[in-house]
Amino acid sequence: MYNIGIDLGGTNIVASVVDENYRMVATGKTATNAPRSPEEIFDDIAAVCREALDKAGLTLGDIASVGLGTPGTVNEYGVIEFANNLGFNNVPARDMLAERLGEMPIFIENDANCAAIGEAYAGCGNGAKNFVAVTLGTGVGSGIIVDGKIVNGVNCAGGECGHMVIVLDGEPCTCGRKGCWEAYASATALIRQTKKAMEADPSSVMHELAKAEGKVSGRTAFDAMRRGDIAAINVVDNYIKYVACGLINIVNALQPEIICVGGGICNEGETLMKPLRRFVQAERYSIHSKIQTRIVKAELGNDAGIIGASLLAVAK
Amino acid sequence: MYNIGIDLGGTNIVASVVDENYRMVATGKTATNAPRSPEEIFDDIAAVCREALDKAGLTLGDIASVGLGTPGTVNEYGVIEFANNLGFNNVPARDMLAERLGEMPIFIENDANCAAIGEAYAGCGNGAKNFVAVTLGTGVGSGIIVDGKIVNGVNCAGGECGHMVIVLDGEPCTCGRKGCWEAYASATALIRQTKKAMEADPSSVMHELAKAEGKVSGRTAFDAMRRGDIAAINVVDNYIKYVACGLINIVNALQPEIICVGGGICNEGETLMKPLRRFVQAERYSIHSKIQTRIVKAELGNDAGIIGASLLAVAK
Repeated sequence: MYNIGIDLGGTNIVASVVDENYRMVATGKTATNAPRSPEEIFDDIAAVCREALDKAGLTLGDIASVGLGTPGTVNEYGVIEFANNLGFNNVPARDMLAERLGEMPIFIENDANCAAIGEAYAGCGNGAKNFVAVTLGTGVGSGIIVDGKIVNGVNCAGGECGHMVIVLDGEPCTCGRKGCWEAYASATALIRQTKKAMEADPSSVMHELAKAEGKVSGRTAFDAMRRGDIAAINVVDNYIKYVACGLINIVNALQPEIICVGGGICNEGETLMKPLRRFVQAERYSIHSKIQTRIVKAELGNDAGIIGASLLAVAK
Repeated sequence: MYNIGIDLGGTNIVASVVDENYRMVATGKTATNAPRSPEEIFDDIAAVCREALDKAGLTLGDIASVGLGTPGTVNEYGVIEFANNLGFNNVPARDMLAERLGEMPIFIENDANCAAIGEAYAGCGNGAKNFVAVTLGTGVGSGIIVDGKIVNGVNCAGGECGHMVIVLDGEPCTCGRKGCWEAYASATALIRQTKKAMEADPSSVMHELAKAEGKVSGRTAFDAMRRGDIAAINVVDNYIKYVACGLINIVNALQPEIICVGGGICNEGETLMKPLRRFVQAERYSIHSKIQTRIVKAELGNDAGIIGASLLAVAK
């Protein structure tokens, strides 16, 4: 049997037929063109599902379940309660998909949680039952899997590890708290930290690199560090310390088999992962245990969300 | 049917026969007299089980399962890997109990986790499936229950929320990190904060209260606050803010139905709980969700661990 995984994003709608080995065998895609009415968007979602099926030479009769990943909050009835960048408020996603595809097992879930499921089952998790995925992007996203199931919490808003305070009364966070992990460990935070260091050191190589790139980015400090720039070395050292602090918090609370770290900054590879592991090793609570949480880089990139959505029948 | 719950403590060994309504129907008790050999201690454990059975007018044939809560780390084979205050190293607790009571379902678990299970099923949780118990004591203990099961993690060291950093590079913690929640929100931390405020303000009522009690305790600042002492008001306000910070971190990560707060400081009742709830309400991530984590006081006191141990057959 096959399952369909759908990624409903702010920019594109992508649906893939996924086989039992978690491989995407065929994909349909269209632009989201948000904001549009939920009816129009769900017509297109059904259309990209049929497109993927056609390409795979399959019909809905070959499909065991359909899963959809969406930004925002999804309640237990498959209703997207709120999704800012789609302009959705209380959209009955599960019912709307069932109207268009027929009655079958249909699951709706937050997209970051879908990505966590994808990595846990089919990516760097390799089937790990206790797994946390962290994404260092504009914010710090996370998805927690315990005993093979995504942790949604009582109000389907669980897994927001980015909004754990690590610096009491620290930097303001978009969520209203001060000192959240996200306010120190996101790409946005790294850029802020880079700019601050550049202001303090007009001779830093970072100025030259930012000028060449046309902006200060998450790469600026890492690239300048590789050229031996002291200010950049300090930025990167501190940034990695911030990321590590939150990772160790997660280790101590949940002791998952694996914490997967994703997002653009992970393209730095071992430059990031190696010192992160060193911090975790030094500070984890269960320092004497033989078995330890492994800190690994995400593997599936953008496919994680689609593959995870296709697995919602088992992971939700 | 009945189950037996055992609390193996540094001071006492207590075993109770617990009925299907989570009521302790009869109890046996003896002093632990640690350090002694595991053989001697497990002989006594079996003896207090038989004492409880005798008092209840039951035999082992009436017992569905036996659960034991112990300090320290317990692995998946029921071996107590390390329990400092018992002097235990790799003690095969499950096998030793089976030798003495006969082959039957026997479960061994960390005592803080047992207490969490007890409160979740039979105490303030009232059957909540997603539940976190926090104990503000010498340290800050915690037990996490997801989908009715205790979260042990990959190395049976899960649930150490007290060792999540809330103040990066802050107060040193016994675990080796700096700025752990425990280093700010434990009774030990409150006493340290109280002493510091007393040093800074020789006219504070706290001096008089500490003298009368013979020591600075977790009550000193709360009692002085009730007498309008400004220094004490500041100590309590800050302490509650520290406790709240960690609670909100847990809410944002896990969105449990209930967080239960226990430990001696909870005897302050609503003086503590009311402002805690106010902080959580203001800072939780899912501020617009209709359903919210409830912050409640622990109900079962010392019985939580025994009742929780009796439930390990379902909660482990």
